[in-house]
Amino acid sequence: MIKIGILGVGTVGESVAKILEANADIIEARAGKKIVVKSGVVRNLAKKRDTSIRLSDDPLSVVDDPEIDIVVELMGGVEEPYRLVKQALKNGKAVVTANKALLAYHRYELQEIAGDIPLMYEASTAGGIPIIGALRNGLSANHIDSIQGIMNGTCNYMLTKMIKEGAQYDEILKEAQELGYAEADPTFDVGGFDASHKLLILASIAYGIDAKPEDILIEGIENITQTDVAFAKEFGYEIKLLGIAKKVGEGVELRVHATMIPQDSMIAKVDGVMNAVTVVGDRVGETMYYGPGAGGDATASAVIADIVDIVRGNHGPMLGYKKGLESGLKLLPKEQIVTQYYLRLEVDDRSGVLAAITSTLEKYGISIEAMLQKPTSDEDIAKLLFTTHHCPEVKMQEAIKALEALDVVYGRIAMIRIEK
Amino acid sequence: MIKIGILGVGTVGESVAKILEANADIIEARAGKKIVVKSGVVRNLAKKRDTSIRLSDDPLSVVDDPEIDIVVELMGGVEEPYRLVKQALKNGKAVVTANKALLAYHRYELQEIAGDIPLMYEASTAGGIPIIGALRNGLSANHIDSIQGIMNGTCNYMLTKMIKEGAQYDEILKEAQELGYAEADPTFDVGGFDASHKLLILASIAYGIDAKPEDILIEGIENITQTDVAFAKEFGYEIKLLGIAKKVGEGVELRVHATMIPQDSMIAKVDGVMNAVTVVGDRVGETMYYGPGAGGDATASAVIADIVDIVRGNHGPMLGYKKGLESGLKLLPKEQIVTQYYLRLEVDDRSGVLAAITSTLEKYGISIEAMLQKPTSDEDIAKLLFTTHHCPEVKMQEAIKALEALDVVYGRIAMIRIEK
Repeated sequence: MIKIGILGVGTVGESVAKILEANADIIEARAGKKIVVKSGVVRNLAKKRDTSIRLSDDPLSVVDDPEIDIVVELMGGVEEPYRLVKQALKNGKAVVTANKALLAYHRYELQEIAGDIPLMYEASTAGGIPIIGALRNGLSANHIDSIQGIMNGTCNYMLTKMIKEGAQYDEILKEAQELGYAEADPTFDVGGFDASHKLLILASIAYGIDAKPEDILIEGIENITQTDVAFAKEFGYEIKLLGIAKKVGEGVELRVHATMIPQDSMIAKVDGVMNAVTVVGDRVGETMYYGPGAGGDATASAVIADIVDIVRGNHGPMLGYKKGLESGLKLLPKEQIVTQYYLRLEVDDRSGVLAAITSTLEKYGISIEAMLQKPTSDEDIAKLLFTTHHCPEVKMQEAIKALEALDVVYGRIAMIRIEK
Repeated sequence: MIKIGILGVGTVGESVAKILEANADIIEARAGKKIVVKSGVVRNLAKKRDTSIRLSDDPLSVVDDPEIDIVVELMGGVEEPYRLVKQALKNGKAVVTANKALLAYHRYELQEIAGDIPLMYEASTAGGIPIIGALRNGLSANHIDSIQGIMNGTCNYMLTKMIKEGAQYDEILKEAQELGYAEADPTFDVGGFDASHKLLILASIAYGIDAKPEDILIEGIENITQTDVAFAKEFGYEIKLLGIAKKVGEGVELRVHATMIPQDSMIAKVDGVMNAVTVVGDRVGETMYYGPGAGGDATASAVIADIVDIVRGNHGPMLGYKKGLESGLKLLPKEQIVTQYYLRLEVDDRSGVLAAITSTLEKYGISIEAMLQKPTSDEDIAKLLFTTHHCPEVKMQEAIKALEALDVVYGRIAMIRIEK
């Protein structure tokens, strides 16, 4: 019999306990041993809960319990779980965590400390989708060319509603909050930070790249409007918040931002709260993994998969390699990213304006690929929407500043990157 | 250093050797050891090949070589590889096979013989997609409600061309043969037999169901016409050759056939030679796995993933369980399948005919859901296309016979099952 201790018994922890009980027959058949939850830890013991788990508010009652074989960490936060996971590993206990923030900041130290003790984290990225296993085991023969992931269900739900139903950003955010898809302060989701944690985890397995959220380009979906949506539709794009990791020469681009992608790509077809990750390997080509990225039961499904793997005796190194991986690869500075761009400007609606804009762009070596001009409610002002050919991010940022400084351009310019 | 011997050095075997060499750096980093191909076996040594592998025509030179750690079986066929794989396992060697036919017939005996020796087969099903790992490890917490797979690229290529470009079956089969997507005798692919082998492998992992190809419903795509395609489009369906495993009470349906599925389901969006498998777990909900189902490098990617897993010390039981799994579940006889149906009939174009048909259907408890009547080049004959509500397969088969016996119905009735 294998005994589990859970740090942080919330929705996911409850689901873990319930599934271990309800599906005990198949889980025991698959793992070869019975798996039970021995005890759990919560911050506030006074809070009323509907649980059969024996609870304590002392994390050490789990971490230092010699009867507990596997510690499941579902607390959230960074430094407290880091301390407790280290302690559990030092006590020789296997650890399963769903904590993406912990891994975004401490995955390399944890791999070092864990050594041969299993430390698994399938639930940390894209919820119930077994993407960690796919990348770490299933694609191990491949140099990874690129990863593109829809890894935040809140953003994908909102963008889907904006695109399919013409909803405005503010009204759909309110709806998402009412449905429990978005937090009262939605910044962590809509600002791209949640997705960045997951991207960093995947990039470590794929490239052995060490980076923290503050090292990479992170933008959210807050500035997307119906004008952008209409343009995207007209030119055959969907708009998705993507986490992107891409090998370019000896560099790796890591970035999270709203992205225009061709409507006929598989990942463009992923709607609503669902998540999906596309991985291109140099040998296998394109593969995609799709499923629910959140929810108690879906996340618990991934947590239990890790537990079963540990009980079976599977382990494999935490990040998927025993020695340095792709040690020549370096994180590419944001400025060196090269991609295509969509820009939205409000300009004077008179002759000569277009020439002023294109000649400004030319100064930075940027050329226009497709353009659309639309009237606004003010007859003297037009909206100018266009996409560019490939150019470096640094040139685009300079060009945007130069354009915003022109007399004929009003307010801020909106920009969305394009991936084909 | 880990030494590999390959039984059957064809396209996939060559790719395995080439990738192990070209990607040796990352593969060693991930596996923790260097992996090399020591020798290979071919049937005809006289055939000219561009390979650096030391070749023999004696399979025992690999299977009985004490220096070889892992035997990779890529021969095809059933009984000869079965004998050789058993011999390799008896010699204590781990085995990796891409041979779906071997597993369709002998997976349970092999699991028994293998015991704790790793016997892995990621490449046997859906080529480069790590679906075996996903189902065996990633979803182990779940009772599996259903599996739907596009697991034959030839059929999906042909159906995509018929649907997107209006191509006729015969002309697109010829094109597929010229492109090397279809064999000179295409029956194994277009008849659904290839997909059935893969379905049986997945069903074993999901349900522990023992069945052979001849025990289950297998139909192909040979009878699909542009009339069916036009109807499907009009009513919001795609047509795909699906392998379906579905739990219904204490029974499991296993079937391979052309299927009408809603255009907006994820698997309906999988076009061309690509494969995809949707798995619905009772806890995780719907997940999907997409990628290339064939090709030397993609298949070799899966073979090497298994090798790396073995070298890492991962194993887990071959079919994913150590004791009986879902032992109460029985294979549901074909006749007891309950689903919706599409029928295509040629009938006399005169009043009273529709009444004769609907009253015949009513005798078997079958009711019509949607209908379309189309003229033919013969003005006395009309095409009648309709879908039914759910009914048992046995009733539908009887109803089709009764309809074909009516004077007003000409020739054979075409039928396509529907899954929503």
